[in-house]
Amino acid sequence: MNYCSHCGSVVSLRVPDGDNRPRYGCDRCGRIHYQNPRIIAGCLAVHEERVLLCRRAIEPRLGRWTLPAGFMENGESLREAALRETLEEACARVQLESLYTISSIRHINQVQMLFLATLPTPNFAAGEETLEARLFEEADIPWEALAFSTISKALQLYFNDRRRGTFPLHHLDIDGELLQPR
Amino acid sequence: MNYCSHCGSVVSLRVPDGDNRPRYGCDRCGRIHYQNPRIIAGCLAVHEERVLLCRRAIEPRLGRWTLPAGFMENGESLREAALRETLEEACARVQLESLYTISSIRHINQVQMLFLATLPTPNFAAGEETLEARLFEEADIPWEALAFSTISKALQLYFNDRRRGTFPLHHLDIDGELLQPR
Repeated sequence: MNYCSHCGSVVSLRVPDGDNRPRYGCDRCGRIHYQNPRIIAGCLAVHEERVLLCRRAIEPRLGRWTLPAGFMENGESLREAALRETLEEACARVQLESLYTISSIRHINQVQMLFLATLPTPNFAAGEETLEARLFEEADIPWEALAFSTISKALQLYFNDRRRGTFPLHHLDIDGELLQPR
Repeated sequence: MNYCSHCGSVVSLRVPDGDNRPRYGCDRCGRIHYQNPRIIAGCLAVHEERVLLCRRAIEPRLGRWTLPAGFMENGESLREAALRETLEEACARVQLESLYTISSIRHINQVQMLFLATLPTPNFAAGEETLEARLFEEADIPWEALAFSTISKALQLYFNDRRRGTFPLHHLDIDGELLQPR
């Protein structure tokens, strides 16, 4: 950030009065421009024991497999964001079950929240940001070609929980090294 | 938003290529400036059956009571944000228990996440943004003087759950009218 988005003047990084950390503040109009973590919402959607994965058509991790998920938008709820992302990336209309994983990913200022969901009929397709969408049995999950470690972790938790027959909320703090492809 | 925070040129609102909603984009350098919901993290902290509330020293709702909570910052986890806000607003060091409420508050682009927490010793005080911090028995909660309906809702859920002896995660979609003071 170099300029004030309100008045166009130069901003500088300083600790505002009554605050305790540096913020970008405008030297002319005085506005403070806060920067905060963003939410990624998505679905681990299942059709007859198979999980819906998408192969990414965009960077980062173009060509790798992921769960349908993306940035929550202003004006929507967390549930709406997860449904919209699944529709956009996999052209799939799913039924949300429970919230399943919450991952704080500190080093990139993101909180990822994935829902368990049911895909009632096997209707899906590659959305604009997807090369290919496909249902995978557990034995066929492309573990070595997954896009993000949070996705790998969510899938591992899911298959373990499925064997136990219970799907509690998993709340994870992710450090940098865990975010590499598995 | 009027100006590009990167190059200082005028921005305009338009739907970028490959996108499906209007964004602020720079007419000169082409950068898109996304705006997304922010996370409020906080605690419903309990000491010997009494709940820790803070009377707000700042707008909005100056003078009204709330749970310690505030904007999650870049570089921290959800748990760290909840602990920090409780320390800043109530000078209280609490032990987090479970994540208790997640409220999507669409019309102000916020997702509020409150943890149940234990305050092991009755050590607390008013932080800089707080006029007064106090422990309340259920019978003494100042229902008519609470700051936000999400806080009122969380307290109602808590006392009901306490009678049942179980504290599940509550996931709420909050519409505008529910955010008024009770």
